[in-house]
Amino acid sequence: MVSIISRSLLSCANCCRIHVFLYMADSFFTLQTTDTATAARAGVLHTDNGNIQTPIFMPVGTVGTVKSLNQQQLSEQVRAQIILGNTYHLYLRPGIEVLEAAGGLHRFMNWERPILTDSGGYQVFSLASNRKITEEGAIFQSHIDGSRHLFSPETVMGIQRSIGADIMMAFDECPPYPSEYGYAKTSMELTHRWLVRCKNYLAENPPLYGYSQQLFPIVQGSTYADLRKASCEFVASLGAAGNAIGGLSVGEPDEMMYEHTAACCSYLPENKPRYLMGVGTPWNLLECIALGVDMFDCVMPTRNGRNGMLFTTQGVINIRNKKWAQDFSLIDEGLPPESRLPYTKAYLRHLFVADELLALQLASLQNLSYYLWLVGEARKHILQGSFSVWKAEMLLQCKVRL
Amino acid sequence: MVSIISRSLLSCANCCRIHVFLYMADSFFTLQTTDTATAARAGVLHTDNGNIQTPIFMPVGTVGTVKSLNQQQLSEQVRAQIILGNTYHLYLRPGIEVLEAAGGLHRFMNWERPILTDSGGYQVFSLASNRKITEEGAIFQSHIDGSRHLFSPETVMGIQRSIGADIMMAFDECPPYPSEYGYAKTSMELTHRWLVRCKNYLAENPPLYGYSQQLFPIVQGSTYADLRKASCEFVASLGAAGNAIGGLSVGEPDEMMYEHTAACCSYLPENKPRYLMGVGTPWNLLECIALGVDMFDCVMPTRNGRNGMLFTTQGVINIRNKKWAQDFSLIDEGLPPESRLPYTKAYLRHLFVADELLALQLASLQNLSYYLWLVGEARKHILQGSFSVWKAEMLLQCKVRL
Repeated sequence: MVSIISRSLLSCANCCRIHVFLYMADSFFTLQTTDTATAARAGVLHTDNGNIQTPIFMPVGTVGTVKSLNQQQLSEQVRAQIILGNTYHLYLRPGIEVLEAAGGLHRFMNWERPILTDSGGYQVFSLASNRKITEEGAIFQSHIDGSRHLFSPETVMGIQRSIGADIMMAFDECPPYPSEYGYAKTSMELTHRWLVRCKNYLAENPPLYGYSQQLFPIVQGSTYADLRKASCEFVASLGAAGNAIGGLSVGEPDEMMYEHTAACCSYLPENKPRYLMGVGTPWNLLECIALGVDMFDCVMPTRNGRNGMLFTTQGVINIRNKKWAQDFSLIDEGLPPESRLPYTKAYLRHLFVADELLALQLASLQNLSYYLWLVGEARKHILQGSFSVWKAEMLLQCKVRL
Repeated sequence: MVSIISRSLLSCANCCRIHVFLYMADSFFTLQTTDTATAARAGVLHTDNGNIQTPIFMPVGTVGTVKSLNQQQLSEQVRAQIILGNTYHLYLRPGIEVLEAAGGLHRFMNWERPILTDSGGYQVFSLASNRKITEEGAIFQSHIDGSRHLFSPETVMGIQRSIGADIMMAFDECPPYPSEYGYAKTSMELTHRWLVRCKNYLAENPPLYGYSQQLFPIVQGSTYADLRKASCEFVASLGAAGNAIGGLSVGEPDEMMYEHTAACCSYLPENKPRYLMGVGTPWNLLECIALGVDMFDCVMPTRNGRNGMLFTTQGVINIRNKKWAQDFSLIDEGLPPESRLPYTKAYLRHLFVADELLALQLASLQNLSYYLWLVGEARKHILQGSFSVWKAEMLLQCKVRL
């Protein structure tokens, strides 16, 4: 990681304290502050494609595009620091041959900042048909053309090498909610064996494009406390650059998700970033940041946005509602200037009612900008020592139905 | 027009020649140059919402949005100088009440440059159901909810006052191709009577938003030379700020369209802008610029773009074609930097194949940027005296199938 540290030295010329700290840490993750009243943390992830300030939300760019937005909008307006790609989708389209010929996903889609890819396991179980899980891996049929494929720890690591993600997720099985104890335990143990195979594959197959790729293992264990603990301990023992909590936000009540997230955070190493997969609403993010989570991803801001649900600094809006027909105030005055859309609620409502494509673009811009603003504000307050008070107020504000 | 001239004086402080010329012309249109080898012209349209350099192409923003693009993209990337709105669509959604409450379409959609609106006649005949034409106007049922409405010269002028377009089109009947002589003649005479009623209505009902609105009458007469001549003479006799040629590009062969366009241009006054409605392909634009047309609009660049047909400086591309799957050259290197998309053909093909929304945005940006580039280049060559040679080369280039 010496090259990364050198970069940090260059970019932190005016900040001697962090500068020295980074040098001493010599790590993928710099933990800057932990909140005194909660377990919330502020830190920095260092990748060869740039740094990421945590806590962070990662917009989902399933198939090499965050739906309806271009990459300039994503970097300049949304101010996304890292985006997520889906291994399953990218493997099927455009396919590994095209991605390798392009020199990886960054170059293919012209996105210079970091990318994280999931392992494809979740999509195999939620999208593909005729899937069969064996010790070797998962055999499935493509949801696009019915063609048959095998995803194994080795093939999935190979695909993520070809994609060139800065952060790669281990291949796992994500059990549904609810799951029987026996199934959850067997599944977790399989995920652990797969994890070792992922690690071994990567040790023998270096990155393709001249920059580092980090593997994040995934904690499973369904909703069973002892399994979660065992999974965290196994995952922690591998000493990965960062660790993910999977198998939550799959239908269980929010309180149960918080309970297991809190437990996992307490077991996982403090000096490594923690990524809670597939979460969630703005209030989910606030609660889980308070529990010690550093990274999030979710399709909610884009998917719900495309259905006319807006997240704003004032609360939640159903923009299709007749009440906005003559509301000529801006969509969200509270966002910073670069993210603030210069259009009114009345105009955006009209675009939705008239089924216009621009509606999808503007709603996606608004919601992602809001999510990035929210985690940025959280970070600011963690660094300032005011997170707890701010969070209590923001929890009320973000749930308001306008 | 004194206020406009004053504005021009302010904005042309570094250009004494045009400055003085504008003052002397005191008109809506400044004819700068007419090509010696063809009838092509370069000029400037002066509206209270800004000047427009002709020849110009106007992107179609049917219902207050150019499909899939936001207004910042339209002004900064496409560099559109004026856009077109559809009276029929805007009247149905968002409706006149909302547009008036917003202070007109410019403010409603946050577009500060000029807008032209059509009269709605064409849409009544092509989209609405159960339509019936009488001397009074056209009774029709909305294609959205089946509600019944009357469009007459007076109601349509009233709607365009509420929209606040800088250029308003007269209410006309657009006969289909082919039409019998008798029908074409009767229809043209009705359009002429409606035109007088449009003019009378406007004389008694001033603009609503503090800036000027110009009425453009529309020449009809189907494909009959004597009717076209009669219609041009009637239209010219009204001394409007600009004149439109309607009823072409409705299915007739290109050569027939050119023939009637040439005839109309020869009959219409030289010192007024000429707008050829609904045209067309890049080669249609080049041919009709050479015949003396100053303004164009067409859904082709956006509609065909959404189907994967790209117009580029190198020729026409079907971006869905397999041949682009690994073509990592930029979509169109030949466009100026502000319009040049930083994405490859391979990436855009992937977006189309994967049915991604970004495909529609990028293809629309490319095609509109190309159209605006094309008319800008035509203008440059008209001013330089090299139009004829350039046009011959460009006619070949723009038809190349890549």
